[in-house]
Amino acid sequence: MKALQVEADRLTLREVDKPEAREEALVRVILSGICNTDLEIARGYAGFRGTIGHEFVGVVEDSPQGTLIGHRVVGEINAGCGKCDLCVSGDSRHCPTRTVLGIAGRDGAHAEFLRLPLRNLLTVPANVPDEHAVFTEPLAAACGILERTTIDRSTRVGVIGDGKLGLLCAQVIALTGAPVLMAGKHREKLRILERRGIATSGVEKALANKREFDVVVEASGSAAGFELALELLKPRGRLILKSTFHGKTEVDSARLVVDEVSVIGSRCGRFEPALDLLTKNAIDVDSLISEEYSLGEGILAMGRAAEKGVLKVLLRP
Amino acid sequence: MKALQVEADRLTLREVDKPEAREEALVRVILSGICNTDLEIARGYAGFRGTIGHEFVGVVEDSPQGTLIGHRVVGEINAGCGKCDLCVSGDSRHCPTRTVLGIAGRDGAHAEFLRLPLRNLLTVPANVPDEHAVFTEPLAAACGILERTTIDRSTRVGVIGDGKLGLLCAQVIALTGAPVLMAGKHREKLRILERRGIATSGVEKALANKREFDVVVEASGSAAGFELALELLKPRGRLILKSTFHGKTEVDSARLVVDEVSVIGSRCGRFEPALDLLTKNAIDVDSLISEEYSLGEGILAMGRAAEKGVLKVLLRP
Repeated sequence: MKALQVEADRLTLREVDKPEAREEALVRVILSGICNTDLEIARGYAGFRGTIGHEFVGVVEDSPQGTLIGHRVVGEINAGCGKCDLCVSGDSRHCPTRTVLGIAGRDGAHAEFLRLPLRNLLTVPANVPDEHAVFTEPLAAACGILERTTIDRSTRVGVIGDGKLGLLCAQVIALTGAPVLMAGKHREKLRILERRGIATSGVEKALANKREFDVVVEASGSAAGFELALELLKPRGRLILKSTFHGKTEVDSARLVVDEVSVIGSRCGRFEPALDLLTKNAIDVDSLISEEYSLGEGILAMGRAAEKGVLKVLLRP
Repeated sequence: MKALQVEADRLTLREVDKPEAREEALVRVILSGICNTDLEIARGYAGFRGTIGHEFVGVVEDSPQGTLIGHRVVGEINAGCGKCDLCVSGDSRHCPTRTVLGIAGRDGAHAEFLRLPLRNLLTVPANVPDEHAVFTEPLAAACGILERTTIDRSTRVGVIGDGKLGLLCAQVIALTGAPVLMAGKHREKLRILERRGIATSGVEKALANKREFDVVVEASGSAAGFELALELLKPRGRLILKSTFHGKTEVDSARLVVDEVSVIGSRCGRFEPALDLLTKNAIDVDSLISEEYSLGEGILAMGRAAEKGVLKVLLRP
């Protein structure tokens, strides 16, 4: 089967053996989505080797005891040991020996087939098209913010960065009733939110609202975004760190102490709330799709996904 | 009157006019304590000019309507505008136009007299000696951790840095019933905690407990302490940033996101809980007193306070 792989710092499209189900489920991938993390991994981030990709929708082709065969599914990307306290409590996202689909120790979704433990899979309701279902993972990551901090209609929220993740975060948070301001650089991306009644601003202009926000979500993945977030936060405000910058960031720790700011890291979210939002058609994901490529054009597609202004690029095996 | 002042980057002991009460209280200082922040301010941190010092116990000598005259008092250091939402809610610690005793826009406590708004003063119970009462402010700062995060007997807590503030933080947290490990470099300082049944460790040895702590308090004021704190924390752990490093710190933001760590800044605490602990004699502050100097020897005392291994240095006008 075809698979988009990282080998040393090189991206290759290869013909590899189709995996076998064994004690996991074998999923035929219908669509996969390119995430910025894929681009980072292709640059050597985290030292991963193998098939990349962790956003997908697919159909179960084989599994232990034939469970879920023929069902359309999405899958949580963290595969835990199943035995540690965290896994037993039902949350493998921080299992110390976890593998992560296309990110750590486990081949990923930019391929014709993938394997995941059965317990990681959720069936997709019939009214959710493939092109929406493939957003379950990044949308879950956006929903994950609400697992890490409390936001309600009295919380003034800023979101920095109008990339794919920022646009999902802003929409998810706006559904809580909180007043949201998105600070971004791209008119056409900001317009996606404006159509849904979410306020937007250029980055420079956002500085007119210094020290006015209870929560700021940093989704730009840049050190400048982190700086801006600190400027926008009230004393005792909460900075949600949603995307990782490559390398180290300089932080003025005196500022964090004097203003008693909290910096809260947020990674993966649970799939149920995300799938629920997609079922209700509560989030505009259509506007986030820039292009679709065949898996065979995977390397071209990765290059396109890295271009400025491009949102979600999908791959179809 | 004598006052220890910072002028440009120079520390001077000067003869200045005794302040008048006017609409505030005039307090005759009995004892003041030298804090590391004083040392930072004397190096030019925060651009403060005037009399330094913010830890004191004194006697009210004059005040509007004669309130509290003759009473022994300690005083909250943040003097708010009294009108903004924060001040009206009874918490001036983040009033945007606040002055701060000996730190920002207001002459401080290393002097024969100081002024503070009446509402900032708390009377000291008779059974609390001056040498304990002078610790109210730093002890309140330690208690302030419990305003910023929840700690109970199921919370495993590490404290990094066996300086004055770290020793107070460890004692306050231990009173919650939480198991506490202090990681420090000075045998004689660690012994103060061991006498109270608090576990201690060298810094290197603490690394044997990687990823085991729910909460780590960074009280060393060093970038190395911040790094160690991240090593010790469990996923979804909370790093309490208690002391400010001079300048910027390099932070691996990917680590904060992947492990979903929270970094929580903590500055000033409320005085009531601290005064309550001193009244109950629940904290060993005696062992934290290294030396006492007369205010006339203030510059010498500041030099002594900056020496390695020295804990609290007190000044008596």
